[in-house]
Amino acid sequence: MDFGFDPKTEDLRARVRDFLDNEVTPAEPVFEEQLAASDDPWAWTRVPVFLDLQDKARTAGLWNLFLPGDKGAGLTNLQYAPLAEITGRSLLAPAALNCAAPDTGNMEVLNEFGTPEQQEQWLKPLLRGEIRSSFAMTEPDVASSDATNIATRIERDGDEYVLNGRKWWITGAMNPDAKIFIVMGKTDPTADRHRQQSQILVPRDTPGLVVKRGMEVFGYDDHDHGGHAELEFHDARVPATNLIAGEGLGFAIAQARLGPGRVHHCMRSIGLAEKAIELMCERADARTTFGKPLSEQGVIRDWIAESRVRLEQLRLLVLKTAWLMDTVGNKGAHTEIQAIKIATPETVQWILDKAIQLYGAAGLSQDFPLARAYAGIRTLRFADGPDEVHKASLARRELRRQADARATSPTAH
Amino acid sequence: MDFGFDPKTEDLRARVRDFLDNEVTPAEPVFEEQLAASDDPWAWTRVPVFLDLQDKARTAGLWNLFLPGDKGAGLTNLQYAPLAEITGRSLLAPAALNCAAPDTGNMEVLNEFGTPEQQEQWLKPLLRGEIRSSFAMTEPDVASSDATNIATRIERDGDEYVLNGRKWWITGAMNPDAKIFIVMGKTDPTADRHRQQSQILVPRDTPGLVVKRGMEVFGYDDHDHGGHAELEFHDARVPATNLIAGEGLGFAIAQARLGPGRVHHCMRSIGLAEKAIELMCERADARTTFGKPLSEQGVIRDWIAESRVRLEQLRLLVLKTAWLMDTVGNKGAHTEIQAIKIATPETVQWILDKAIQLYGAAGLSQDFPLARAYAGIRTLRFADGPDEVHKASLARRELRRQADARATSPTAH
Amino acid sequence: MDFGFDPKTEDLRARVRDFLDNEVTPAEPVFEEQLAASDDPWAWTRVPVFLDLQDKARTAGLWNLFLPGDKGAGLTNLQYAPLAEITGRSLLAPAALNCAAPDTGNMEVLNEFGTPEQQEQWLKPLLRGEIRSSFAMTEPDVASSDATNIATRIERDGDEYVLNGRKWWITGAMNPDAKIFIVMGKTDPTADRHRQQSQILVPRDTPGLVVKRGMEVFGYDDHDHGGHAELEFHDARVPATNLIAGEGLGFAIAQARLGPGRVHHCMRSIGLAEKAIELMCERADARTTFGKPLSEQGVIRDWIAESRVRLEQLRLLVLKTAWLMDTVGNKGAHTEIQAIKIATPETVQWILDKAIQLYGAAGLSQDFPLARAYAGIRTLRFADGPDEVHKASLARRELRRQADARATSPTAH
Amino acid sequence: MDFGFDPKTEDLRARVRDFLDNEVTPAEPVFEEQLAASDDPWAWTRVPVFLDLQDKARTAGLWNLFLPGDKGAGLTNLQYAPLAEITGRSLLAPAALNCAAPDTGNMEVLNEFGTPEQQEQWLKPLLRGEIRSSFAMTEPDVASSDATNIATRIERDGDEYVLNGRKWWITGAMNPDAKIFIVMGKTDPTADRHRQQSQILVPRDTPGLVVKRGMEVFGYDDHDHGGHAELEFHDARVPATNLIAGEGLGFAIAQARLGPGRVHHCMRSIGLAEKAIELMCERADARTTFGKPLSEQGVIRDWIAESRVRLEQLRLLVLKTAWLMDTVGNKGAHTEIQAIKIATPETVQWILDKAIQLYGAAGLSQDFPLARAYAGIRTLRFADGPDEVHKASLARRELRRQADARATSPTAH
Repeated sequence: MDFGFDPKTEDLRARVRDFLDNEVTPAEPVFEEQLAASDDPWAWTRVPVFLDLQDKARTAGLWNLFLPGDKGAGLTNLQYAPLAEITGRSLLAPAALNCAAPDTGNMEVLNEFGTPEQQEQWLKPLLRGEIRSSFAMTEPDVASSDATNIATRIERDGDEYVLNGRKWWITGAMNPDAKIFIVMGKTDPTADRHRQQSQILVPRDTPGLVVKRGMEVFGYDDHDHGGHAELEFHDARVPATNLIAGEGLGFAIAQARLGPGRVHHCMRSIGLAEKAIELMCERADARTTFGKPLSEQGVIRDWIAESRVRLEQLRLLVLKTAWLMDTVGNKGAHTEIQAIKIATPETVQWILDKAIQLYGAAGLSQDFPLARAYAGIRTLRFADGPDEVHKASLARRELRRQADARATSPTAH
Repeated sequence: MDFGFDPKTEDLRARVRDFLDNEVTPAEPVFEEQLAASDDPWAWTRVPVFLDLQDKARTAGLWNLFLPGDKGAGLTNLQYAPLAEITGRSLLAPAALNCAAPDTGNMEVLNEFGTPEQQEQWLKPLLRGEIRSSFAMTEPDVASSDATNIATRIERDGDEYVLNGRKWWITGAMNPDAKIFIVMGKTDPTADRHRQQSQILVPRDTPGLVVKRGMEVFGYDDHDHGGHAELEFHDARVPATNLIAGEGLGFAIAQARLGPGRVHHCMRSIGLAEKAIELMCERADARTTFGKPLSEQGVIRDWIAESRVRLEQLRLLVLKTAWLMDTVGNKGAHTEIQAIKIATPETVQWILDKAIQLYGAAGLSQDFPLARAYAGIRTLRFADGPDEVHKASLARRELRRQADARATSPTAH
Repeated sequence: MDFGFDPKTEDLRARVRDFLDNEVTPAEPVFEEQLAASDDPWAWTRVPVFLDLQDKARTAGLWNLFLPGDKGAGLTNLQYAPLAEITGRSLLAPAALNCAAPDTGNMEVLNEFGTPEQQEQWLKPLLRGEIRSSFAMTEPDVASSDATNIATRIERDGDEYVLNGRKWWITGAMNPDAKIFIVMGKTDPTADRHRQQSQILVPRDTPGLVVKRGMEVFGYDDHDHGGHAELEFHDARVPATNLIAGEGLGFAIAQARLGPGRVHHCMRSIGLAEKAIELMCERADARTTFGKPLSEQGVIRDWIAESRVRLEQLRLLVLKTAWLMDTVGNKGAHTEIQAIKIATPETVQWILDKAIQLYGAAGLSQDFPLARAYAGIRTLRFADGPDEVHKASLARRELRRQADARATSPTAH
Repeated sequence: MDFGFDPKTEDLRARVRDFLDNEVTPAEPVFEEQLAASDDPWAWTRVPVFLDLQDKARTAGLWNLFLPGDKGAGLTNLQYAPLAEITGRSLLAPAALNCAAPDTGNMEVLNEFGTPEQQEQWLKPLLRGEIRSSFAMTEPDVASSDATNIATRIERDGDEYVLNGRKWWITGAMNPDAKIFIVMGKTDPTADRHRQQSQILVPRDTPGLVVKRGMEVFGYDDHDHGGHAELEFHDARVPATNLIAGEGLGFAIAQARLGPGRVHHCMRSIGLAEKAIELMCERADARTTFGKPLSEQGVIRDWIAESRVRLEQLRLLVLKTAWLMDTVGNKGAHTEIQAIKIATPETVQWILDKAIQLYGAAGLSQDFPLARAYAGIRTLRFADGPDEVHKASLARRELRRQADARATSPTAH
């Protein structure tokens, strides 16, 4: 057991941190101004300072760090995790390094399951950062936590597949540069529970695909990251060769992308929480009420200590999850992958709430990043299914494991 | 001790409830459309359907219910409180009945402390609902929970007062119809702690008063209620007769308006929480996951029960506070006025968080009123000073009370 | 609506409070010494100072205050509730005033459902405080929250009933003066769900009734109140005339006793919490760490304020429940009777935990009443079924109520 | 970074676990009976089955595992930590393996700071398990969280030191086999804050040392582990050679023992929590209410999942703390040593509370180990100072660290 990072990771941490501090952070207000001045508020990937950042990241060798294997940086999950934490400090950083969701997951899927043609057409431009992509799974009319509820149809018709259905909360899809969507739907509703679904590539300009509106989160449309679109498919047709991996493999592909994405999300959230603790400490030292700085108020100190104590525990669990994925695979890390989904939003939301409270009304306003961060983290409590579903499932497995242990060593109790 | 409402209150409750259900609720989507189609998104008081609602409220005798005495409906705090609860179910209702903050507090102040000329010029059009008003107290550069921190200067110069300073979170002030601002500032920074402040009337068109920008709460600009402005005063001059009550009375006036406003706010928040419980139950019955409706899931039932149990307790405390204000005065109700400030946002925020969780991502979106309600309630945890300041003060009084009790009956312990 | 007590209640509150301060509190250490010096640690009702206290209570007219009607003090639930609160400050007080559970519930049952012979034989000596009684319902082998689970059999055999089964947590039953037990069991397991149970009077000396052992709560055997016995019934026979009310009425009788007992318990718990707040404030003023009294530490003030704010809300809900029972009956107060069962232990346990924390290790020791109080309150979270069962039931009713409201006014939503 | 245990640790884990399951667990009821039948309820170390267990542990090579270096098992903190977790499952196990507090800390102190004579006379019999010891620091009259408050005097008088003062909560000291006490007191109240204290060896039979009474925790006297004594020193004289290390070093010695003891305590608490989760799952599967097993109730599953998620995070933090102590020393692990003190009792108490709730009243009784476990864990929230003191201190360090970071990289923010 060893809690230190390896030298390669330490080196990359320093370089990513430098890039954040020296390139991304100064670029943030410029990005905001340039986007505000642009014609299309959703076309955030066309903002000059962002393109510039991407160039610098490529040059600095901080590009596609998320991707294992020779097409990417070849890092393990455990090596990449602390880098994801650092990028989580800034809304702009993940994309600047071409490590932003949902493109990362989409690239992983294409890398692992795509045909050479699919990789040529879509993976390569994604890896170069020339286009963006979306992943269309959630539907408005059913509880998305239960994959068998999915209602969108993908039906074979000759050399094509025909799509019909509605999706929403399709992150990034409002951006006109999101050229390709991976869509989850049912090819065979009569098959086994987890063999009904397929995933298919649907180009943005496919007739019958309507990008209907952007969903808002607590009043934010998140246009600076492509928003969250509601989509409609009305007899939208794509070539049969657009299917990924094969009919009935949609659920399996979704599971495969889950593990790494979960770790990335959680580590970025931890980076956000670190940023929030910094902001808390800064304000607590700077602000005086009733004759002494906030940092000398007992209740404030309690918040800061609790934040630190909770965050340290959380980070270790996420890192252990990455380590398990590297050593025993995603399946062996199942419990932990679920556990970090449960623990992360709760902990980070708690910390953000305290940071906001410390800033007073300013904390809820556009002048600080806290309220927007809170909104983003709040959505994690439903993303990939609400916490409650994950807890129920984790408990079921714990109960089974304990029952097995009782069965095999009855005297131990 | 009697927990029933009197007949007059019961009658008004039924009428206000009818008005909500039959007039306000159907008008809400129309209001939204008409405002969206208007020239000035902040000029919400000019929307036809709103003006129409006001007419209906006047005709129905549901006008100025908040105001005691013969200029208003003559209700006690305890009689008005349950009506405020009902109006809290809708963002539009309070203004439709001319019972919306901050106008209510401003009208109370003018009613109690205004000169006949001030009443003629500003109170009357406010009571008729012809203009709107704002109350400018909070400042960006100091912790507003400590009134002695206020930095805005109000300086006498001949027959005028000259204002300099910055204010923010001035609710309603983005609306061009907010014609008059009551501004709190310091006339004498050398006076006793609570005699330094004064309140003065500043018309919107006063040269030197700049309405700089609207503050956002989470991502909402609240333009449909006049937003929350940042203001600057650069040598803004008003006639000396605009001073309210007298120099050095600003703190006392602020205290006087506090009690009723607190009860109104808390009761409206309770109405919002009732609405959230309704929405929870509706969704829980309508939505099925993993083979059974949400309403049969144990965890969901736990939320609904907790919501009910907490809300019942909270409402009784707020009603008791209103009763104390009516029977022993605001001073005698001091502890309770503080207690409801502490208890209400915490309880209602908890309920809204569960309602959102039950709705999934939809709960955070523009399709349901929950996220916006959450944003509004979240601000209450700082309004009139953060919870922590109120708790510290309430505890100090409790400690003193207990010490007195020990001193007078030493054998009782 | 009126939050003041009536003059009769105010008079009794003052007298009960005086009796507590001047008679009961000084008697407490004497009681402890005398009991420790006695032969039978369970025979607490024979301790001289206790008998003396009872005499004084009778003389002071503070006797059987709990009992409505002409056999008791004739108080309403709302009038008695604040008196129960005061007695809750002392473990000895309720019995000193002949207002202690489970005798109060047993007397209510005998008063309402007993035959003249049953009343003559058991109710009268109980009302005179000459004997004590127990109520035997909970069983070790089944979840007691579900009354249909009860396994103890009560079978008719000629002029007798024969009892077989096990009971535990039978409060008071270790005291040799607990001369009569009201036992709940099944007379007809094939009847309707709520018609299977009966209640029957079983004298302590009945052959076949074994008082097996005392259960402990957190290490306390509660011998100074008769403990909590485990009982066995082996063909225990009593005359058929010992049946209360009639076969199949056991569940109904249990429901009838529930309401008042719940209010008494909750109010006594509130009295305990008030005592805990007093102790907190006293210690906070007396103890200094790191250069200032605990009462000036922010975190401690937060606890005191939260305690006060929560307790005020809780008390109002319990009082409203008493008022509902008086005005619309126990059935109309169903939701509230359940709500106070959920809210009271949670709130009071929270306050006691903070009080203990403030006292440090002393707070857990025999030197202060806090740990024992905590143990007692902790049991309330299962008494009459665990919180979770009550929450599920309350939520079910809320869901039904809301569904009905939607059905009758579909446009209101 | 590597989250696996090394082979040596894995081997020991298996052996300790076997010893627990096959030797200690079956011995527990026997121990209880034999102790109950003995003359002196405090003399638990004389119980035959316990002596037998010690023999078996010595034979199995599972003896003094806690002690680093050649006098003990030579394990690192990180290697010993998971073994401490396993022993935490049983109240008897730590002593059976001669790894029980406070002897472990006392042995560490004598090992590191004792003179050869002190080691010969006291350390050797302790290492052989022939005698027991206590550590006397906490005092009734002052807040022990502040070491400078200590009032007990240790005054030089010729070749002797004279002790005067009161101590309480001296764990183990009621056992007549606790032959030696390490006492903390002040040799020079005028010295620097942290140089006033010294530690000295006081044999049990020293005239002037009075073992006054046993303190109770909730209702437990913990006689089966030597209880928690209140001690008085009235001119108690010991040879000057009994001083440990030197005058003024008492605080430094106390700090040195803190780290390992903290890790041991926390890991044992985690073992206890694991046991509680096992008991929860067992009961949840075995018990049926309202037609389905508790393990299928949503709320129960929520508790089990939360317990698992919280415990996994906690364990990693404690293990990391052990690793830091091994790699950068106790000083470098300061924040983490404090963090686990804050996190452990809160988490484990939460889990125990849920386990108790699942068991109903049985969970609070002598029939299950849960209530006693709860009582023990509850004391940890004050042990070595209350949580609040540790949080304030941790926050102060965090604030300083962040201020330093801001100072060195001003542009990074």
